[in-house]
Amino acid sequence: MFKKNRKLLIPGPTEVKEEVLLSQAKPMISHRGQEFSSLYRSIIEKLQSILNTKNDVFVLTSSGTGAMEAATRNFIQKKSLHVGGGEFAKRWYKIAQSNGKEADLLEVELGKGVRLKEIKEKLDTGEYDCLFVTHNETSTGVLHPIREIGDLVKNYPDIIYCVDAISSLGGTEIKIEEWGIDVLVSSTQKCLAVPPGLAIAVISEKAFNRAEKVENKGYYFDFLPMKERFDKKGETPATPAISLFYALNCSLDKILKEGVDNRYKRHLEMANIVRNWAENNFGLFAEKEYLSPTLTVVKNTKEIDVSDFIKQLKEEGFIIVNGYGKLKEKTFRIAHMGELTPNEIEELIINMNQILSL
Amino acid sequence: MFKKNRKLLIPGPTEVKEEVLLSQAKPMISHRGQEFSSLYRSIIEKLQSILNTKNDVFVLTSSGTGAMEAATRNFIQKKSLHVGGGEFAKRWYKIAQSNGKEADLLEVELGKGVRLKEIKEKLDTGEYDCLFVTHNETSTGVLHPIREIGDLVKNYPDIIYCVDAISSLGGTEIKIEEWGIDVLVSSTQKCLAVPPGLAIAVISEKAFNRAEKVENKGYYFDFLPMKERFDKKGETPATPAISLFYALNCSLDKILKEGVDNRYKRHLEMANIVRNWAENNFGLFAEKEYLSPTLTVVKNTKEIDVSDFIKQLKEEGFIIVNGYGKLKEKTFRIAHMGELTPNEIEELIINMNQILSL
Repeated sequence: MFKKNRKLLIPGPTEVKEEVLLSQAKPMISHRGQEFSSLYRSIIEKLQSILNTKNDVFVLTSSGTGAMEAATRNFIQKKSLHVGGGEFAKRWYKIAQSNGKEADLLEVELGKGVRLKEIKEKLDTGEYDCLFVTHNETSTGVLHPIREIGDLVKNYPDIIYCVDAISSLGGTEIKIEEWGIDVLVSSTQKCLAVPPGLAIAVISEKAFNRAEKVENKGYYFDFLPMKERFDKKGETPATPAISLFYALNCSLDKILKEGVDNRYKRHLEMANIVRNWAENNFGLFAEKEYLSPTLTVVKNTKEIDVSDFIKQLKEEGFIIVNGYGKLKEKTFRIAHMGELTPNEIEELIINMNQILSL
Repeated sequence: MFKKNRKLLIPGPTEVKEEVLLSQAKPMISHRGQEFSSLYRSIIEKLQSILNTKNDVFVLTSSGTGAMEAATRNFIQKKSLHVGGGEFAKRWYKIAQSNGKEADLLEVELGKGVRLKEIKEKLDTGEYDCLFVTHNETSTGVLHPIREIGDLVKNYPDIIYCVDAISSLGGTEIKIEEWGIDVLVSSTQKCLAVPPGLAIAVISEKAFNRAEKVENKGYYFDFLPMKERFDKKGETPATPAISLFYALNCSLDKILKEGVDNRYKRHLEMANIVRNWAENNFGLFAEKEYLSPTLTVVKNTKEIDVSDFIKQLKEEGFIIVNGYGKLKEKTFRIAHMGELTPNEIEELIINMNQILSL
């Protein structure tokens, strides 16, 4: 049932190293004891070191979507603006609405980067107190300019700036304090190469001050008790997914050993191989200026049968995915994140060329 | 760091068998493919078989607290009544309030079973449309009479009857349809002996009809898309904790192999050993009629230093816990759930007797 030689080149879960997989199999411990506190504190220190941030970091037992919901419930007091072109920006907008929040969606043409001018116009209305931006949009392969947006947001002191870095954290540099990011959410099954089930949230003091004023934050995703419990005891308010904490800890050690800069370089190197191949044979869906270093969306200019192509590639041991939503069959997506290597990407390309007779 | 010979006799996480631990280490698969759908569908069939229910069952990537929150958000339209004596009944009440729901708490004296008359009086006011009951209260060792409460609730067709079976599911019989339980929530790290990180929800058609009318259910814990996605594709709306699904599947196989009736008998046998010891040497905190088969709360009638006793016992390889909240030092708690055996409980007792010179 589970072929070991199949490589996942999908935007999560990504390939998980044997050592990380096995680390999950350690015996259970109480989540209310010293061993767990030490483990959790150590994970937080490593994440702070990788992200080079002094802000509070939390690990949530949920998918990344859970952390996205947490952000909408903790920080929107008045109204939120959601920016992005693609399915995951839309998802954050829907999450806000489904929680009874006032929210607007500023749509950007699919495949294009966000335009700062449009954000400025919106923020100038004074209607909003939260801005939500998807860093790496895996439905289009666009890496939105969160640094430039952050510079703009610095002019609006009432805005809590929230970034979805679910498929970018660990694959490309993010400077939280410097870029003015108040809230960053992510998950661990993408560039961090851990089995799914954990989300990450990085919260600034300014964001905590907002959370104190917001009502009906719920219980499971309320950041205030998370902070109180961690500061006091190194614990989580509810029972954490202990075996996934083991795995995260193991993977973070590997990331620190590789060195974050080397890791970012490796991701870019893999991206360049795929981009070159796509440009020579198909086309790139995303605007050149905003190409994602962790995932490439290939425009199906040859009008191949994408489903069939993916099926054939799977037989050769490589799993890639069709376009997302409306972009199905019009594009296909190759994720190059986590623990994959440029050599493996070259192998993928040899196989793709063979199947397509290129 | 992780002593293999230490036995967890705490109310979760419980001891996880080597085979289940190792099943987590299988390679990752896409959660949008055939392999995952087959796995999830198979898990649901096994849970329905263990619970002998035809109602819809879902596995959530969260702790049990997440599923408790889901119940409050999906089913309370008017006002909820929370019944129980202990910390976990109170938690459910707080969860409802933190989500902006109107809620009342009917407190029962600690250690006592719920009185049906008091529930009847409350329901007769017509104020409520949801009733929340904690089946097994791990802070007091009381198993509340959810069957009798269910019989009562049958007279109130507008009430959605929700049961927290977090520390009872898999350790004692629950008849969902027969007892009129509309919503049952649980988690997998207790009697099901899986590492923590997954919750279970069992939902009746009547409850789904209510959910359709409730607004602002949020996104991550909304049962309607969970049902739609499962019925259509055997998938979860957000990314699931795949390795924990492997472990749950493996543990359910072991449970079915043991036989659920044998499993319930084994739990009761373990409970009887601990109860006898407690009665002969200390006392039982819970009312005799309502003693829990999965956890015993021992009354510290000898006024021993409980923290010190627990520390000494840990050195011998047995982890038990102090009383919860206000009952700290006044009680101590021995969980006999999951994969533990009567022999292991006998061993614990030998060690407790030695430490206490009994």
